Amino acid sequence: MQGKVYLVGAGPGAPDLLTLRASRVLERADIVFHDALVHPDTIALARRAERVAVGKRSGKHSTAQRFINKRLVDAARKYRIVVRLKGGDPMLFGRAHEELAALKAAGVEHEVVPGVTAALAASAELGISLTQRGIARSVAFLTPRAAAGEKPNDWAHAAAATDTTVIYMGAGEAAMIASTLLAQGMSDTLPVLVVESATLPERRVFGLTLRDLPQVADLGLSGPALIMIGEVYADAMAAVEGGSLRARYA
Amino acid sequence: MQGKVYLVGAGPGAPDLLTLRASRVLERADIVFHDALVHPDTIALARRAERVAVGKRSGKHSTAQRFINKRLVDAARKYRIVVRLKGGDPMLFGRAHEELAALKAAGVEHEVVPGVTAALAASAELGISLTQRGIARSVAFLTPRAAAGEKPNDWAHAAAATDTTVIYMGAGEAAMIASTLLAQGMSDTLPVLVVESATLPERRVFGLTLRDLPQVADLGLSGPALIMIGEVYADAMAAVEGGSLRARYA
Repeated sequence: MQGKVYLVGAGPGAPDLLTLRASRVLERADIVFHDALVHPDTIALARRAERVAVGKRSGKHSTAQRFINKRLVDAARKYRIVVRLKGGDPMLFGRAHEELAALKAAGVEHEVVPGVTAALAASAELGISLTQRGIARSVAFLTPRAAAGEKPNDWAHAAAATDTTVIYMGAGEAAMIASTLLAQGMSDTLPVLVVESATLPERRVFGLTLRDLPQVADLGLSGPALIMIGEVYADAMAAVEGGSLRARYA
Repeated sequence: MQGKVYLVGAGPGAPDLLTLRASRVLERADIVFHDALVHPDTIALARRAERVAVGKRSGKHSTAQRFINKRLVDAARKYRIVVRLKGGDPMLFGRAHEELAALKAAGVEHEVVPGVTAALAASAELGISLTQRGIARSVAFLTPRAAAGEKPNDWAHAAAATDTTVIYMGAGEAAMIASTLLAQGMSDTLPVLVVESATLPERRVFGLTLRDLPQVADLGLSGPALIMIGEVYADAMAAVEGGSLRARYA
């Protein structure tokens, strides 16, 4: 048996933000290895498939990553259609490179199916363009989580140089992010939106400023969260009564 | 009649890279105003709808934009489900802000449906992560096209400060882009991929370096093209025989 492995983007959360291509691959799947955060209704599209949770909530478990790589290669020798179902889009903070490298090294056929990334879905829900004409024509997606050998603060230069910045996987380090960005010369009154669980019923949105960003630690965030920074969020900030951190942006 | 207007992302090109939500909105649509570059099979999903092409191939036609805004508002008074179908994702270089502002001002109900943006789809096809661990943890999406009042070179600072850069709507200004980025201190040997018509059968991919980017003018590009810059493309560059600009990256 020489199966094919599909790395599939499950999209930002809501099951109907999956692509048609992804849903068709899932329907044909024999086995699905899915992240912990993928919606149960999305996984359920893989009607015929054996379903295996391989979620890592933190990106730091490289032992777990090597184990996933091996399981994908092994599965391709036993099943025809193997799906690795990943939250968001596979090519953005998805560690797809390691999985693709393992599949290539083992000579396993593979294909990547893109997905809607959380920053785009959150922007759609907010009704705020990432690149509002006249205000922003560059946007950075970045994470402050450094891998071995990476410079610690290069992400902060990127944030300072782009008009709009969306930080993934950063809510647990909000105080460090705020102090690093302020040290880069970014304004402490810069508007910030924190979006938790974008596209899901439990979604929460908070409007604040870069100065107040450390208070994110007090919000009791439990879902995945984006930190969205830039002048394009000025109107949204103004819409929050009293500018209070606790005020939910409607 | 008080209809609802949906701004819908049609995705990067291939009709099956539409989201389930977008396909369901299209199936219910009474009228669809679509960009010139949206795939005919995607438009055809709007079975019951009157279909109106409002495409602008250049982003500079502000008169045309005002006319589109007005047509959307007028349509909401005549039809129940109005769709504005836009290439890629509406909140990234889509001029959605102007359309949303017009709808808000007129008190028209509206909703944005996100889409897969071209940079993610091109990355999936290439099998190259935008944020390969250990090499890149920031990516900028940007355009060098300046609106009135925007600083001319801020996009170049953004490109220089992020690990990976994807330039939208820039292929027609490749020489200006190369000279501006080199003046920012970016390396002339930095790997660049130019991807034309991502996800479509006529797709072409060229591997080159930042120094050679001006030669893009000789490629006879006719479809929408992305300029993807960064060390994550080093292996892809090396895979191009002889490093020739004309060599297609497989």
